[in-house]
Amino acid sequence: MTLPLQLPPAARPGDALSAIDTPALLLELDAFERNLDRMQAAAQAAGVALRPHAKAHKCPAIALAQLQRGAVGICVQKASEAIPFVNAGVPDILISNETVGPAKAALVAELARHVRLSVCVDHASQIADLAAATAAAGSQLSLLVEINIGQNRCGVADAPAVGALVSEIQAHPQLRFKGLQAYLGSIQHLRSYEERRAAAGGAAERTGAVVKALAAAGLHCEVVTGGGSGTVEFDLASGVYTEVQPGSYIGMDADYGRNDFAGSLRFEHALFLASSVMSVGNGERTVLDAGLKSLAVDSGLPLIWEQGHESAKLIYTSANDEHGIVQLREPGAARPALGQQLWLVPGHCDPTFNLHDDLIAVRAGRVEAVWPISARGLSR
Amino acid sequence: MTLPLQLPPAARPGDALSAIDTPALLLELDAFERNLDRMQAAAQAAGVALRPHAKAHKCPAIALAQLQRGAVGICVQKASEAIPFVNAGVPDILISNETVGPAKAALVAELARHVRLSVCVDHASQIADLAAATAAAGSQLSLLVEINIGQNRCGVADAPAVGALVSEIQAHPQLRFKGLQAYLGSIQHLRSYEERRAAAGGAAERTGAVVKALAAAGLHCEVVTGGGSGTVEFDLASGVYTEVQPGSYIGMDADYGRNDFAGSLRFEHALFLASSVMSVGNGERTVLDAGLKSLAVDSGLPLIWEQGHESAKLIYTSANDEHGIVQLREPGAARPALGQQLWLVPGHCDPTFNLHDDLIAVRAGRVEAVWPISARGLSR
Repeated sequence: MTLPLQLPPAARPGDALSAIDTPALLLELDAFERNLDRMQAAAQAAGVALRPHAKAHKCPAIALAQLQRGAVGICVQKASEAIPFVNAGVPDILISNETVGPAKAALVAELARHVRLSVCVDHASQIADLAAATAAAGSQLSLLVEINIGQNRCGVADAPAVGALVSEIQAHPQLRFKGLQAYLGSIQHLRSYEERRAAAGGAAERTGAVVKALAAAGLHCEVVTGGGSGTVEFDLASGVYTEVQPGSYIGMDADYGRNDFAGSLRFEHALFLASSVMSVGNGERTVLDAGLKSLAVDSGLPLIWEQGHESAKLIYTSANDEHGIVQLREPGAARPALGQQLWLVPGHCDPTFNLHDDLIAVRAGRVEAVWPISARGLSR
Repeated sequence: MTLPLQLPPAARPGDALSAIDTPALLLELDAFERNLDRMQAAAQAAGVALRPHAKAHKCPAIALAQLQRGAVGICVQKASEAIPFVNAGVPDILISNETVGPAKAALVAELARHVRLSVCVDHASQIADLAAATAAAGSQLSLLVEINIGQNRCGVADAPAVGALVSEIQAHPQLRFKGLQAYLGSIQHLRSYEERRAAAGGAAERTGAVVKALAAAGLHCEVVTGGGSGTVEFDLASGVYTEVQPGSYIGMDADYGRNDFAGSLRFEHALFLASSVMSVGNGERTVLDAGLKSLAVDSGLPLIWEQGHESAKLIYTSANDEHGIVQLREPGAARPALGQQLWLVPGHCDPTFNLHDDLIAVRAGRVEAVWPISARGLSR
């Protein structure tokens, strides 16, 4: 080999799982496809559009698999994040978040030349920037007004505030008011099914009240979009949302796994980090080659996964930058050998995808494909 | 613009700081260069080699600036991480960690064809893999035996265990025993100067005892390497280490900033994340465009930085995936305007660098250069 050196791929189609160079992010395709099918079927049964959130996976191949099953488009959370999905041919994208400033408005306006694009607003100055940029680019853009239904993050307070922004939008012929964005992330991880049901009901009620007040003022919302993987069963049944935007259901994570999913709509762990035992000391330790730089730990440490379940023997107890420390649940039990591969369920899927360039798609003990996580790092 | 769309750069040389598209990782060059100069001068005054840890920054331009000032080489933590530094012409690299398995051994052996390379071992099977791979590649490789001086992570227990591995190494003419790796990460963030001094003294004493026992057995350690940014003043003065490997001192982070640096060797915050206010509600909120995907929060939330100090008015209180929530320290004070840029000091520099593709190098209010963070994501 001559300079510049290139890193060999972590895996190639056809490889046995044991041949994957670790750490590597894996998607178990059978479970993943069952997750996609279940969500699509539930949305169709409810007569609600499914617009999965691609901020979770950042992977065009996954978005295309979602569209193929009937998703109406995707959400992204940042303007830059849309780029690889536009390049991959996704025809309809919602930036489910506000953008600020002329540079981002110019990017949004350029994206709108290539795709049916919507973006959220919660302030008149965002509308002014987008109006100027779309006028310069010659593009058409749909706007959703975000309403605050309890997150106290982005969004306006009530129907009159929505109405005031709609008046601003209507001053620009290339902009179109399309409806409302209403998302409440904080309830997605309420552990009990009944608590989540009640909280989602409250969120839908607040959203519905704004829709009703706008209708009374003569303003029709073509789209009311929101919901997430933790509440989607209730969001679909609410009669308020015309569209739901779950993301994490594709692969789930350890944190979502701690939710009690008592209802019929359940999803399986399909996302794993393959790691290897890289040090064993004198047989008294188990150190993995995967830490903070391969796994997001903001929502808790990963689970160790063995034969379809959380390991009954091993527990991942601490993440250093590049190392994971594993303890035995029962002292004296056998430890994994140096070099043995262990699969981990990441604590939080979204920022874990954001650490990896490639997703190794596996099925029946073999690598089937390697999918680029093309929007990894696109946070502008 | 035609497909495929490309994301414009966050900044170009000559841009005003206000023109930087956020979130973007910044390096304030004046403070950065003072940090490099101070560390190099301290190492030279102590007669100890400086081998900065590139796992902190993953940026070849920074490594070259360190070498230019007299660093003897760099450390990396993973075999794959070495690749962009080899490609950039760094002549001497220590992989300060164990590698496991034939795929990684093959990569190490290939790297050793292009650079003076050392790697750590703590088990005979790692040596066997490296011996086979270097024999196949026709390369020469130096090995350091890692000793456990209290981290209880990697490393062997004592001098006899080192000696046993040295015998394995000596069976292979293309492998060379070069000395000891001895690192104690857990003491780097002890807050009090005296506690850190005592803990570093204990670590150096344990390391020195192994060196002495090996010498008594006729084994000379050409290199004894260890230490970090939190303890480097004591590591340099210990008389035990021939080489130190601090990383974070280049830019510091909020967590290191909480250490009490009573001694003469202090470093400045030079690493910032530029973010923008993207939502203000009805004037009652401040939401930034930078959350978990732009900033590592494993060691705490970022500080807000204003005019060379932690902000007296604003506090970053929570990180969502793509949003940061900012509160006022005193209710009723003025809030930053929509679109205003705020600079954050990341809680933990190493995994924050690992989220970004580019580092915007700034000086005197202007962008001076954009440096690729080429080893970002290289965790294998």
